[in-house]
Amino acid sequence: MSVITLTTDFGTKDNYVGVMKGVILGINPSVCLVDITHEIAPQQVREAAFLLLSSYRWFPSGTVHLVVVDPGVGGKRNPIIVETERHLFVGPDNGVFSLIYEREQEFRVFKISNPQFLLPKVSNTFHGRDIFAPAAAYLSKGTPPSRLGEQINRYVRFPFTGPEIREDVLEGEIIHIDRFGSLVTNISEETWKGFVSRDKQEFQIIIKDKILNRICHTYSDVPQGELLVVIGSSGFLDISANCASAAEMLSAKPGETVRVKRSP
Amino acid sequence: MSVITLTTDFGTKDNYVGVMKGVILGINPSVCLVDITHEIAPQQVREAAFLLLSSYRWFPSGTVHLVVVDPGVGGKRNPIIVETERHLFVGPDNGVFSLIYEREQEFRVFKISNPQFLLPKVSNTFHGRDIFAPAAAYLSKGTPPSRLGEQINRYVRFPFTGPEIREDVLEGEIIHIDRFGSLVTNISEETWKGFVSRDKQEFQIIIKDKILNRICHTYSDVPQGELLVVIGSSGFLDISANCASAAEMLSAKPGETVRVKRSP
Amino acid sequence: MSVITLTTDFGTKDNYVGVMKGVILGINPSVCLVDITHEIAPQQVREAAFLLLSSYRWFPSGTVHLVVVDPGVGGKRNPIIVETERHLFVGPDNGVFSLIYEREQEFRVFKISNPQFLLPKVSNTFHGRDIFAPAAAYLSKGTPPSRLGEQINRYVRFPFTGPEIREDVLEGEIIHIDRFGSLVTNISEETWKGFVSRDKQEFQIIIKDKILNRICHTYSDVPQGELLVVIGSSGFLDISANCASAAEMLSAKPGETVRVKRSP
Repeated sequence: MSVITLTTDFGTKDNYVGVMKGVILGINPSVCLVDITHEIAPQQVREAAFLLLSSYRWFPSGTVHLVVVDPGVGGKRNPIIVETERHLFVGPDNGVFSLIYEREQEFRVFKISNPQFLLPKVSNTFHGRDIFAPAAAYLSKGTPPSRLGEQINRYVRFPFTGPEIREDVLEGEIIHIDRFGSLVTNISEETWKGFVSRDKQEFQIIIKDKILNRICHTYSDVPQGELLVVIGSSGFLDISANCASAAEMLSAKPGETVRVKRSP
Repeated sequence: MSVITLTTDFGTKDNYVGVMKGVILGINPSVCLVDITHEIAPQQVREAAFLLLSSYRWFPSGTVHLVVVDPGVGGKRNPIIVETERHLFVGPDNGVFSLIYEREQEFRVFKISNPQFLLPKVSNTFHGRDIFAPAAAYLSKGTPPSRLGEQINRYVRFPFTGPEIREDVLEGEIIHIDRFGSLVTNISEETWKGFVSRDKQEFQIIIKDKILNRICHTYSDVPQGELLVVIGSSGFLDISANCASAAEMLSAKPGETVRVKRSP
Repeated sequence: MSVITLTTDFGTKDNYVGVMKGVILGINPSVCLVDITHEIAPQQVREAAFLLLSSYRWFPSGTVHLVVVDPGVGGKRNPIIVETERHLFVGPDNGVFSLIYEREQEFRVFKISNPQFLLPKVSNTFHGRDIFAPAAAYLSKGTPPSRLGEQINRYVRFPFTGPEIREDVLEGEIIHIDRFGSLVTNISEETWKGFVSRDKQEFQIIIKDKILNRICHTYSDVPQGELLVVIGSSGFLDISANCASAAEMLSAKPGETVRVKRSP
């Protein structure tokens, strides 16, 4: 049994996700459908890119990841397939796969164009149903990407927005706030370890007017209600609070600057 | 593998939907369960009827559509099955299938009554679990509707509330507002095409104090933040905004009047 | 096909639930995954315990119930498996299975410790993914609990917080408020029947400044908008309103006292 994951900004009060699943099951009745989230803020391509990055590798080889966050639907952007060593991705060419391009060594991008693998009538407003869902369904049945369209070499890739390092200061930002109010930064474990590589290196992690100066192992390393920094489960530095919301305590929003200073 | 879809007003914070799925899997362990939505506003039968109408035909033949929006649970309304050429529907006889009756040429309605296909103890407050879920599960296994109860000829059907045409004015209303703030009207593509059938017909679409006078192909036909009208993905006229919420821009609610005037 | 249910406080805007499902499907590709709810209020172990109690027995024999409401993640609490006659439960040892211990006659508790059945690298912040999901997946494939770790005799069990009876007064509390605003009490049908066992026993059910003095069969036993008491679908006394929210009408919250007085 193959797996298709779904990541959209469709929410769950409408029937858009259900309809996509109906189309998929009409093509591949034995597929297993898994929702990643449908609560990407409307049209927030970068948020989708991050959640996809921190999700895809936990799924079995051969999983098809369907992403529909598509402010340009009906316009000129291409519908694409990204093929990596273990996974397939289907969605609009609007940069949503940028972090996959960055993480994966090898990948190929295809433009979906073969009408044989689309719904007979393609609307201008719901490509999730008419193009992406059928493409994902055929891929999950083993149809090779090259049958759905030609490989292309030009596709949208966001400029890398990782943290900047200038001498003894590393400047990153909050890229996601989770349900518990944890602030996920764009400072990866690797970047962090490169920056504070010296044993017993002293440092200050600064967000708004707060200064934190150690990395904890787990939430209960600090008393309830206090802030802490951990290497989060997605592999990025998280600013959290034990049994409380760091986002509320700091009134922090996505985009907020996080600055790290190391002692020279 | 057969499919059961679920459309309810149960929300997702309680365990009602999970419990219904447990009951179904106890009867048909190999069924595929697909949520349409559980966020129908409590007891809003008409909203459920619309979302069902715009969902069901995207599912494979033989799909069972389970609908539990049931303000009269425990009272006198019948639990029913509706059989159409390709689909089966299970739910309370409170009008929620009215738009299916209107769209489908041929259908038969059965009253669920055979205790062999219900849970042993039927509560007065949760027929979703005790009557509808088991009925849907047996239907998904191929049990014919007539085994669950007798065919009936009297059932609840809302009076048709389509748009009204008086000379050169068509008057419809907003029947659903989606997550993106698009206003879905009850003016279907067919009704629209009948009304403005003349080539180069000029018209005005009026909602609140705004006048729109063309049908766009896609959202990006107008600048970001501007209103537009499209034939929406469900086959009805939608009043939307490019990368913005038409509902917020117009402070519009379901029930709001939409008036179309054509030049004589 | 075996079933795993999921009950968490992860919400649905992040990818935590999806990632757990990915891990499970990598181990048991043919499992059927059913969400109970992911909207347990963050870290509310008692609410999770109640929803689990009122859900588990509706699922087929052999179902694995995975519960991740885990304020102590990364600390000293054990990850455990509870085995009952028909079901398996996986989650943190923080009392979340207390009501299962109370309801089931026979059960055994195991501490998950065998690294062979965990993810290779266990984080300090996401045991749902690294410990509980793989454990549930192996159990759903038929791996016996004893292979995942040793049976233990000490585990966390909340003191019983059922209603108190003193002479002619029974004092309970609201333990859950559902989407419709029904107030679910901790007064079970059995407790109730023991308390008002005399035929034609007169009683008063008192919540805030309201007094109700009969048990209804169904919502429509009272006019729309009025309060009523029913034996709810979970087997507890519910204070509801016909087509309205009892929670709003009474401004009631979980923990609110419900007092029943019987005439001597």
